[in-house]
This record gives sequence, structure tokens and C-alpha cells, in this order.
Amino acid sequence: MAHIPHLYLPGPWEADCLALTDEQDHHLRRVLRAGDLAGVSYTDGQGSIGSGTLAAGGVRRGDESLVPRPSPTLTVAVAPPRSSDRARFVVEKLAELGVDRLVWLTADFGQAGAPRQRRAARWAGGALEQSRGAWLMEVDGPLSLADLPGPTWMVHPGGGPLPSPIEDVTLAIGPEGGFSTEELIRVDTTVGLGARVLRVETAALVAAGLVLHHLGRMNT
Amino acid sequence: MAHIPHLYLPGPWEADCLALTDEQDHHLRRVLRAGDLAGVSYTDGQGSIGSGTLAAGGVRRGDESLVPRPSPTLTVAVAPPRSSDRARFVVEKLAELGVDRLVWLTADFGQAGAPRQRRAARWAGGALEQSRGAWLMEVDGPLSLADLPGPTWMVHPGGGPLPSPIEDVTLAIGPEGGFSTEELIRVDTTVGLGARVLRVETAALVAAGLVLHHLGRMNT
Repeated sequence: MAHIPHLYLPGPWEADCLALTDEQDHHLRRVLRAGDLAGVSYTDGQGSIGSGTLAAGGVRRGDESLVPRPSPTLTVAVAPPRSSDRARFVVEKLAELGVDRLVWLTADFGQAGAPRQRRAARWAGGALEQSRGAWLMEVDGPLSLADLPGPTWMVHPGGGPLPSPIEDVTLAIGPEGGFSTEELIRVDTTVGLGARVLRVETAALVAAGLVLHHLGRMNT
Repeated sequence: MAHIPHLYLPGPWEADCLALTDEQDHHLRRVLRAGDLAGVSYTDGQGSIGSGTLAAGGVRRGDESLVPRPSPTLTVAVAPPRSSDRARFVVEKLAELGVDRLVWLTADFGQAGAPRQRRAARWAGGALEQSRGAWLMEVDGPLSLADLPGPTWMVHPGGGPLPSPIEDVTLAIGPEGGFSTEELIRVDTTVGLGARVLRVETAALVAAGLVLHHLGRMNT
């Protein structure tokens, strides 16, 4: 299946033929050298997934089905790393893994702004295609710790073992300087990730993998 | 502690004052603006760790102790990604996390060569400093599947749940094109990482995090 291109085509889907972006069209026809009638799969990023064919003007729709929204959900709140490369990495890798929502976190020791919304959404859309998913990761924020949804588990050196999630949960990953004492006392649960000092993007990806594993979402 | 620079200074340590590389010296004195008598920690990457002070000509040694080698060990065998950025990412992130050994894997559908040994060792050394570890990740290979040490768990779409490791284990991460049928039948255990198609570097990092967690090495 991996050789069939997977396309993110936001809904609502109304016509029989769905338009491609210039970038998608270029990638399909020039890079992959796909012609009319080539098989593609496509998703609206909201659970609908279909298999269709390439046609003049876009994708001709075929069989479609609905992938239920994963539950419980995982939100990951991340203090933006300073470099744009590393911010992009956070977005792409969490989206690829199937995290439900990424929130940029405003933290006391945070030193960087969040990437622009449109860029982040484009990175998440690319990762959705790459990973052949049906649910697009939402990216929003910035929010402060107090405004995060659900029980929040703060990833912090010296924190406790990872609990088993039983409901929607939010992981909070601090900036390079760590969380402040004021921030630490505001949260009930802190989670450690071993003796090594991890960079923001490493901690985010590894912690997300562990929670998704506990949620049974890393089984096929 | 995070503001005290952590230095990788390969042994054997014989003199009272350990020499720095030009790069380390530049980073300490020019970037961090550290002067003589500034506190540093240092490791030989073989379990010895010390706290000393910056001095003319290097680091004056202070209290030293030995961190036992983690056991069981985790080896991660990875088919080299095509881009050098992504190969570097694999080395740095696995070293940061505390993986014991990275082996470049020769795979039937592998399309890229391994990074040069000296570059990879430099990336691993940088990640050891960054993550404040005492054990340097070894990087070697290329080896084929048949030559990997210990029980090998092949990460592959549709594989089973991750077993709990009880002895030294090797995770094998295939190239973008996946493992061939011949390779798949050669291994007893395949492990899936969920419904998403993950890139080589994502699968390597997430699978390593899960195994280290099972080994109790993600607790502080």
C-alpha cells in the first residue's frame, strides 16, 4: 500500500472530483510521474478516508469509509523550541505519530514564540499524508499551563513514573530552562523520563509514544 | 545542575588536568564565557563521571565516581536514512536517550550508506554532553540482520505488541521501503507501532523509548 500516494484533501467533499493543491499536483505528476487513473488514497483529516483515482482537475472519488476518532485523546503542550527546524520537527513527528492536538505552551522560562499557524498546519498536513492517517493533528495556542484541557502531566526531570491514562490527557513539555517552581506547584502530576536531560523535541516525542502505547494506540 | 557544562573527555584519565578539544575550549570560554575555576562536570563515556574546574590547559579533576553500566542493554539497528540530517537525528536522539549501541543495518531495500564513523561518533559525543550522560552510545556497523547480537525484535507495520525485555535486546528498524519477505521470515519477533506509517528516525526513537521504559530506565 505504501506506494499509493495518500493525500490530505480538507472537506467538505461535495463534488465527485476533489481539487488538489498545486504542490500536490506537482508532486504526483512531476515527482511520482503518476498519470490519470493512477490510484490514490485521500482523507479529509476528520476521519473520512477514500480510495480514488487521479483525473484531470483532481482526484475522482471512490470507496470511502470513516475511521472513528481515537479515544481517549492525547494533547501535547510544548514550549516552542528556539530553532525553527526543531519546532518543525515537533509538529511533524507528533502529527506522524497520531497525537490528537498540539498546543504551544507559554512557560515562565520559555524564550521563543510559536511558529505561525499556517506553517504549522502545513507541516501537520504533510505528516498526515506521510503517515497515511485519517485524523489531522490540530495545532493551536499559545496557552498557559492553567488553560490546558484535562488532567495535565508535566514532564520534568525527577518526576514520577508515567501513570496509565484512562481519560483524555495532556502532556506538558517545558522549555530548555525547565519549568519554574511556580509552574511545578500548580500541577498535580509530574512525570520523569529517566536520568538523561532530554531536549524539548525528544521529550515530547518519547513521552507521546509512551502515552499512546499505554492507550493501546501503538498496536495495529 | 543544567547550567554546569558537561564535557565528554575520553579516557584513560592519567594527568590531574584533562585536555579539552579546541571546540570544547571555544564553547566554554567564548560562548559560555566561563573563566578559570568555573565548575564543570565531565565523563569518559565509560561510566566515570567527575566534577572539576576549568583551568589553563583544560579541566582540573575533582570528585569522581562510577555509574554502573545499564543492564540489560538496548542495541538499535537502523537502516541509514537517505538524508544526512535524518541520519544525524537518529544518532543524536538515540544517544541522548541513553541507547547503548547503534548499529547501521544493511537491509535488502536499504538505499543509503552509513554516515562516516568519525562524524557519527562526534554526533554521539555531543549528545552525551547535551544529555549529561556517563555512558557513550557506541556506533558501528554496517551489519546485516543475521549478524545482530541477542534476540532481535523487528519493527514492522502489522507486527505484534512489544514484549517485555528480560535480557539484552536488539531493535531492528528497516529502511523506508520496509523489510523484504526474506528478511521478515528470518526473525522470530516483529513489533508494530500502531496504524501510522512512521519514518525510520521516528520509529527508531519511539521504539527505543518504549523498550527503555520497559527496562525501567525511563524512571529517575
